Amino acid sequence: MSDDRLTAAELGEIWAVLSPEERADGVEHLERGEAHSFFLGLAEQEQAAVLLAMKAGERRLWMRLLAPDDAADVIQLVPQELRASLLEMLDEPTRREVAALMAYAEDEAGGLMSPRFARLRPDMRVGEAIRYLQRQAQAKLETIYYAYVLDQEQRLLGVVSFRDLITARSDKALSEVMRRDVISVPDTLDQEAVARVIAQHDLNAIPVVDAEGRIKGIVTVDDIVDVVQSAATEDIQKLGGMEALDTPYMKTGMVALVKKRAGWLSALFLGEMLTASAMGHYEDEIARAVVLALFVPLIISSGGNSGSQATTLIIRAMALGEVTIKDWWSIVRRELTAGLSLGLILATIGLVRILVWQAIFHTYGEHYLQVAATVAASLVGIVAWGTLAGAMLPFVIRRLGFDPASASAPFVATLVDVSGLVIYFNVAQVILQGSLL
Amino acid sequence: MSDDRLTAAELGEIWAVLSPEERADGVEHLERGEAHSFFLGLAEQEQAAVLLAMKAGERRLWMRLLAPDDAADVIQLVPQELRASLLEMLDEPTRREVAALMAYAEDEAGGLMSPRFARLRPDMRVGEAIRYLQRQAQAKLETIYYAYVLDQEQRLLGVVSFRDLITARSDKALSEVMRRDVISVPDTLDQEAVARVIAQHDLNAIPVVDAEGRIKGIVTVDDIVDVVQSAATEDIQKLGGMEALDTPYMKTGMVALVKKRAGWLSALFLGEMLTASAMGHYEDEIARAVVLALFVPLIISSGGNSGSQATTLIIRAMALGEVTIKDWWSIVRRELTAGLSLGLILATIGLVRILVWQAIFHTYGEHYLQVAATVAASLVGIVAWGTLAGAMLPFVIRRLGFDPASASAPFVATLVDVSGLVIYFNVAQVILQGSLL
Repeated sequence: MSDDRLTAAELGEIWAVLSPEERADGVEHLERGEAHSFFLGLAEQEQAAVLLAMKAGERRLWMRLLAPDDAADVIQLVPQELRASLLEMLDEPTRREVAALMAYAEDEAGGLMSPRFARLRPDMRVGEAIRYLQRQAQAKLETIYYAYVLDQEQRLLGVVSFRDLITARSDKALSEVMRRDVISVPDTLDQEAVARVIAQHDLNAIPVVDAEGRIKGIVTVDDIVDVVQSAATEDIQKLGGMEALDTPYMKTGMVALVKKRAGWLSALFLGEMLTASAMGHYEDEIARAVVLALFVPLIISSGGNSGSQATTLIIRAMALGEVTIKDWWSIVRRELTAGLSLGLILATIGLVRILVWQAIFHTYGEHYLQVAATVAASLVGIVAWGTLAGAMLPFVIRRLGFDPASASAPFVATLVDVSGLVIYFNVAQVILQGSLL
Repeated sequence: MSDDRLTAAELGEIWAVLSPEERADGVEHLERGEAHSFFLGLAEQEQAAVLLAMKAGERRLWMRLLAPDDAADVIQLVPQELRASLLEMLDEPTRREVAALMAYAEDEAGGLMSPRFARLRPDMRVGEAIRYLQRQAQAKLETIYYAYVLDQEQRLLGVVSFRDLITARSDKALSEVMRRDVISVPDTLDQEAVARVIAQHDLNAIPVVDAEGRIKGIVTVDDIVDVVQSAATEDIQKLGGMEALDTPYMKTGMVALVKKRAGWLSALFLGEMLTASAMGHYEDEIARAVVLALFVPLIISSGGNSGSQATTLIIRAMALGEVTIKDWWSIVRRELTAGLSLGLILATIGLVRILVWQAIFHTYGEHYLQVAATVAASLVGIVAWGTLAGAMLPFVIRRLGFDPASASAPFVATLVDVSGLVIYFNVAQVILQGSLL
């Protein structure tokens, strides 16, 4: 019997191709210890799907495995009409904890925290506290290594680590050994901001407090690794010009995969149609000087590329909290300088290219000097403008109340393409007036 | 005196505009406790710069503040000729630890680990182990909450948590209570892979072992947050089409900022010059049918945008370990399907746009149906090709031994621009033969 049993490794191998029912069946047929850790290792979306695929009578055991913060997330992922029945499967104290957590959005501190932390009173002696934590060690606390000293109203007075306790004299009061300058976060703070606070101060755990200063739970650093990882994934996918996938790439179905990409791709396409209108506006110029058309892709892509660099830098700096909206003016100055420098570099390369090609192939006709000047001058303008627009777009988008990461590289490129054409043909009109135009 | 003293917050505020000497001076004039935590909170590059700016006699105190893994990183950041003198400032046991760590690259497990972990013997009793860890609590151990049970040859037999110990009977041998299925990582494993192992198994600490299975140190989850954060920053900046900055955006000098961007921007510009050659190749066609030129930016940007989506998805999935090089064929099939679907969507929008504009403005002449067919057919081909090329480029780059994140969105766009023009003008030649061309 035990020999032909599925192992967790085997189940993991074929997981991607199984239906929800087959997944539920697979989990239930693992050896018990393996089954529990396999189930707990799944993403919340998958835990919810597996639970839904099980017979109602079998769900209780698995619901009770979940820590309260995970149970709250899973319950919020199932259809409304099933939530109450899942909640009822929990034991009474857990149910109250989970119900309290469900009041928070999943992506704020309150939705991330565990309500199971160790509470101590300030007048407790060190020895007493150690014995108390020792007895609590078998309880379902998130950690016993950090304990929080609270007053009668659950307000946070201080924190002690287990390490502090076992190195202190056992007859001292906690109020004498606790650290009072506790860094805490409000329960409504965005989880990425919580991650920044934890990373900045190298904390292992951070208490979460409500508006009245009462402690509601703690967030531990291991929860933060997932937050940081998935926040980066979301930003990267948005920067690539699509909606964030929510599920791992290989586990995302084809319909969802196309849907997440088609929206932005179509929007960018509609935006980019303005280039056809802009080009139409300069149709006569192109007809008279076809040589102008040759450089169109080169010119507009340079604007797009420099804009992509700038927008990527600013969005990441914003996500890391290195840059805030009040820095916009110093960024304008920095990026204008950078953009002009980069524009001059590309203009020089472009100039050399045209002169060399002309010398060898005589490609660009008798007015090649004016053509070269047009290309070079446009490049300086377009790269500087692309850089500046790329740097400012995240600020504009944040000001409008959206996620700055939506200022994707393709979005900036589209924006700069249209204005790049206008710059290019206007420069051409000035320089080529009387010769080619 | 103490009233007009600089505070850490004030120093942080003006930090970006200070010279290395002023920074060193600022740190040394903070109140002592503040100075220590301010210095320890700096990035390693900045710690090294501040140390170098101090007088040689003042460096010892600050070197000794650093944990051995950080000291090793800092020493590797200063010029070769100064390394020995910094190393000598450490006390003898730390110096040996640091020298051992310096044998590892900074971005592998060995370079990330702390050599200061708690070691226990398997025949120790639980009570003995607790008392031993209690005495060690004041030592400079990275953590006392996890202790590693080793044999005579420093090979890893098992792990016990402090929580396990205080809930076990105190006369049991460690060999009876320790967990034997310890997940460990080799000392040469890349730090991002270490982060994945820790995140996947929800660990608080992981032992690092050498090729003979001897434990060399531990990596704790709080170190992993920084690894994950900076790996994501690096990937995001590369995806934006530039070199990774290494320093926070606002703290990067203008010369470095332009340098990190100019290289890729110039390379992309040189690549994009092929579009001018391609356009030159079709100059006659453009002269005969200027209407073709109008759609050039629209067509090639659609290829670039769809390629950017695909490459971003694949690079992130690779970084998260969701996709490896052996998945390339199933990705080809997925992305070809996705690309064709997306191409059909854009082709439909493009078709509608041309027909509506023609009905209202009569923009596209008598052969507007053929023009519309050319644009639509090209879009299907170019979007499918852009998607496929974008998805495969990271694999090609990894195969060549480079970081797949170098397959930036602008890189893919440039690649697809040239081939997009070839597809477009060839489709035009087939469809418009005998009418416009």
